[in-house]
Amino acid sequence: MRDIVIIGHKAKTSSDFSLNDLPGAAGRMDILCRCVSSALFLSFGMRRDVNVHLLLLGEPDPGKIIRFEGQYLRYLNPDERSSASLINKALKKEVSNLEVRSTPGVWIRRGEFKTLLDEFEGRALYYLREDGEDIRKVAEGFSDPVFILGDHTGVREEEEAQLLKAGAKIISVGPLSLHSNHCISLIHNEMDRLEAKNK
Amino acid sequence: MRDIVIIGHKAKTSSDFSLNDLPGAAGRMDILCRCVSSALFLSFGMRRDVNVHLLLLGEPDPGKIIRFEGQYLRYLNPDERSSASLINKALKKEVSNLEVRSTPGVWIRRGEFKTLLDEFEGRALYYLREDGEDIRKVAEGFSDPVFILGDHTGVREEEEAQLLKAGAKIISVGPLSLHSNHCISLIHNEMDRLEAKNK
Repeated sequence: MRDIVIIGHKAKTSSDFSLNDLPGAAGRMDILCRCVSSALFLSFGMRRDVNVHLLLLGEPDPGKIIRFEGQYLRYLNPDERSSASLINKALKKEVSNLEVRSTPGVWIRRGEFKTLLDEFEGRALYYLREDGEDIRKVAEGFSDPVFILGDHTGVREEEEAQLLKAGAKIISVGPLSLHSNHCISLIHNEMDRLEAKNK
Repeated sequence: MRDIVIIGHKAKTSSDFSLNDLPGAAGRMDILCRCVSSALFLSFGMRRDVNVHLLLLGEPDPGKIIRFEGQYLRYLNPDERSSASLINKALKKEVSNLEVRSTPGVWIRRGEFKTLLDEFEGRALYYLREDGEDIRKVAEGFSDPVFILGDHTGVREEEEAQLLKAGAKIISVGPLSLHSNHCISLIHNEMDRLEAKNK
């Protein structure tokens, strides 16, 4: 299983946003949508062994987690608008601390960054940062990994402190600073190569 | 310079499509939009040493080439809708065999696949196909490369024949078949690593 967490610091937490303005009124929801697509799509089909966790921390009701579960996911196409539409549907749900399903393979609940870290206790956490260790040098050790990525504002100081306290390793995908969805393609490629080699 | 060609076999060649339906009425224009974004964006800024050539072969007036020139590009944001809007503006222009600028860094003209291949004569061509040689084994030899990618329908037999006749090498980015925009992220990463190493 590969779990991928993306923190959307500004991502809107109600469904009253237009699919025509994801970068603006929806709080850079476009970033999260591209991450969902990069995390879940292969050319022909979907990565069924991937879970994507979107942490939405924007107004008006910050602290919601939407989970895309590759194994059961339906109705997702690779375009941004398609992910956005499933996110929007999830945000129409009444939320509590228990997950509720909005569409097949999409779940929403109330939660913070700590909620996710607690849930992943015992799993190997990898936090993406430009100055981290090269993924090509550490990928051999990956086993059931959880990857954590920030949005356009990165990962905040207090989040980083929580991550390090939880034992997360800092890794990098290359010499340049890239968008989160591009990082996800690079992570997957490294894992795909590893799995193909160890087959 | 890195040149990236994406062939849009169904991509609409008039501007009468809605930005709200890129996968449908616009002939999978969403694919080309994601490729533009993956080809040109870094976290903070744009890849100025990249040219993207979109070959639009859909109805109603097949055979148009839109070029995004990293060096002079403006008004592009990373979301699909933003690329689509610049493509739409380009398609409003009267076209001939000579390039005409629609917005800063975006050019359109009439042209076929052969037009591009003729233009790149003398450059090293790399054609992405699942069973090609691993990019990690051949990247050392990259110099001023041109990468050619298909859309969701791949590269057609006659295009492949033209490519091989033009001396293109067949390369692969990994063990699984991926979307073209994901391939572009992987190509860039390989080139970025190479350049960082040779600095």
